[in-house]
Amino acid sequence: MHLVLARTPDAPEGVKGISLFIVPKYLANADGSRGARNDVKCVSIEHKMGIHASPTCMLVYGEGEGAIGYLVGEENRGLEYMFTMMNHARLGVGVEGVGIAERAYQHALDYARTRIQGREAGKAAGERVPIVRHADVKRMLLTMKALTEAMRAVAYVAAGALDRAKHHPDRAEQRRNQALVDLLTPIVKGWCTERCIEIASLGVQVHGGMGFVEEAGAAQYYRDARITTIYEGTTGIQANDLIGRKVAFEKGATASAVIVQMRELDPLLASLGPAYDVMRQNLKSAVDGVQAATRWLVEAFQREPRAGAAVAVPYLELFGTVLGGWLLARSALVAKAQLGEPDSDREYLSAKMATARFYGEHILPRARAHADTVTCGAASVLEFEEALL
Amino acid sequence: MHLVLARTPDAPEGVKGISLFIVPKYLANADGSRGARNDVKCVSIEHKMGIHASPTCMLVYGEGEGAIGYLVGEENRGLEYMFTMMNHARLGVGVEGVGIAERAYQHALDYARTRIQGREAGKAAGERVPIVRHADVKRMLLTMKALTEAMRAVAYVAAGALDRAKHHPDRAEQRRNQALVDLLTPIVKGWCTERCIEIASLGVQVHGGMGFVEEAGAAQYYRDARITTIYEGTTGIQANDLIGRKVAFEKGATASAVIVQMRELDPLLASLGPAYDVMRQNLKSAVDGVQAATRWLVEAFQREPRAGAAVAVPYLELFGTVLGGWLLARSALVAKAQLGEPDSDREYLSAKMATARFYGEHILPRARAHADTVTCGAASVLEFEEALL
Repeated sequence: MHLVLARTPDAPEGVKGISLFIVPKYLANADGSRGARNDVKCVSIEHKMGIHASPTCMLVYGEGEGAIGYLVGEENRGLEYMFTMMNHARLGVGVEGVGIAERAYQHALDYARTRIQGREAGKAAGERVPIVRHADVKRMLLTMKALTEAMRAVAYVAAGALDRAKHHPDRAEQRRNQALVDLLTPIVKGWCTERCIEIASLGVQVHGGMGFVEEAGAAQYYRDARITTIYEGTTGIQANDLIGRKVAFEKGATASAVIVQMRELDPLLASLGPAYDVMRQNLKSAVDGVQAATRWLVEAFQREPRAGAAVAVPYLELFGTVLGGWLLARSALVAKAQLGEPDSDREYLSAKMATARFYGEHILPRARAHADTVTCGAASVLEFEEALL
Repeated sequence: MHLVLARTPDAPEGVKGISLFIVPKYLANADGSRGARNDVKCVSIEHKMGIHASPTCMLVYGEGEGAIGYLVGEENRGLEYMFTMMNHARLGVGVEGVGIAERAYQHALDYARTRIQGREAGKAAGERVPIVRHADVKRMLLTMKALTEAMRAVAYVAAGALDRAKHHPDRAEQRRNQALVDLLTPIVKGWCTERCIEIASLGVQVHGGMGFVEEAGAAQYYRDARITTIYEGTTGIQANDLIGRKVAFEKGATASAVIVQMRELDPLLASLGPAYDVMRQNLKSAVDGVQAATRWLVEAFQREPRAGAAVAVPYLELFGTVLGGWLLARSALVAKAQLGEPDSDREYLSAKMATARFYGEHILPRARAHADTVTCGAASVLEFEEALL
């Protein structure tokens, strides 16, 4: 059974004439039993780099007597229906990115705890240690862990807003949350999947040479992850949706509201103590960056929409990075408060705090780099003569 | 015929008792003709993610009557010989990274110029255009191009220093160049291969869905690239060599000499005109970053060597990024001078200038992020309790 976009005989030209059909593999007899095969043929199966459990093939319809399809909904509204599906799928693929990232992390952590190689740093003799004991392996695992938790937090905020947009009793709250969902959807899709590739690649790296051997399992995450930034709209498509239909169209209103919320966290972070000063400083600077970049984008869009498109992906990366840092910092505050309560889960809560700190020192600095590229980097793309590539 | 590290019967314990042998597949008869098969068996072939033209297998020696090997050089110096090979191989793998990156770029550029999809930005109607016309595709191609040219430039500087270290008539120049080779080798290996993975991944992205299908060819670069940060010493191993045996051991002397040389470029860059102001500013700030990070590392190493190891890879990434920006800026100056000469190759020279500018605005901002992580990020790694991972 397939869903197919096609034209009815008298459909208007262009995308306005596309309808959605459901095309069964077998036709039904009058009594409901399985009838003749529909005129649909699989003519080739693609050899993909990953997601081998999901075959991709080329189907040919109506080569013989004609394939029979059943109209879904109304005629000529096919593209609209597809975008409804696509919009849901975008959040789904973003969460797929979180899922692959989490599995890649668990896999790498398990390997790093059991694989014995080398000695403690600075010791020429003595017992050999599991590789998790080596500082750079730990740094890689922390990068995977911190990014994955940040990605999950951003996805959860989007999911919460989606629920409130649909079910909140107050219409104004519904609208406010829908605007947030609209802003966050391309970020969840684009940022979580781009970072998923980074995380899966680190997972291979933690395994060393074994990571390159399929038997170890790390390579599959790396190969599977690679589709997530492509299907249901590439990162470039997400970023253009973010800057155009979201940020520029409403003159940065929802983005600015999020920025205000992020700034409100800053004074509270002092209570985490001096070990969190760098995180706090980097978060502040990152929020400044997203504010400056948003202002620049809104203005640039009025002058020359192509300028925005040239730095749309850095803007998406910036926004995702900052949201992740904000949410982890918030979770560190909650964890600290709960640590003081009786019977609290010390390990879980301490890990939350230390993970937020790591993110603040190792991931958040990327935000300033992205912000600088957004505000200064459009011309070097647009003015580059295409023939000189 | 294989090279094998093994022990002779009375060898001392540990790495000091390892010798290098050459083990032929067939033994030789007295008359030099091919004799009996040596006692060497291939017991399994690994299924790797990439580099399928190079089979990897497990060999078992001496299961039966015993395998015959011939000692290479002197007894017990096997590891030393291996490191000689490894050191050459490191530059080789770095250049392999440049090679894969260049091919991935050419492949993606060709696709982007021929694949027609969508219309010019902001136009709802009109002719469909090749995807290279879309700003974000162009940005991805420029990222690939700029990084590849920067990587190649860094590798060439290392190669030039290697020649001078071996053949310069002045012994002091030989020593100075050898120190530069020692500093640059882990950077060429580590940075060029890490960026190669980024470039190969962008190559897949430029192809969109087709990039995930093996037939298109982009996926192979992505899979093949993945081994380059692992074999002949992982990026973590390179980075530890860089900060320990190179930077800390000589208290940053060679690094500081390179920094001085990079600073000398700054006043000359004014002649490139205001379009290059951001590049110039970002290069200055990036060089400040590498200087601060080097100073921090030298001091940290005296206090606690593990602190250096926790941020060694960010330091390697920082140094590679800045060297690349410096060399492209230098090439922009040379190109500008040559553009004024009669019969100069306008396209080639203009591309050099515009590529340097792009690198300055889109890649160099990463340097500050890396520098911040080096100087502030060690504690969040070291203090993270291993059990909380």
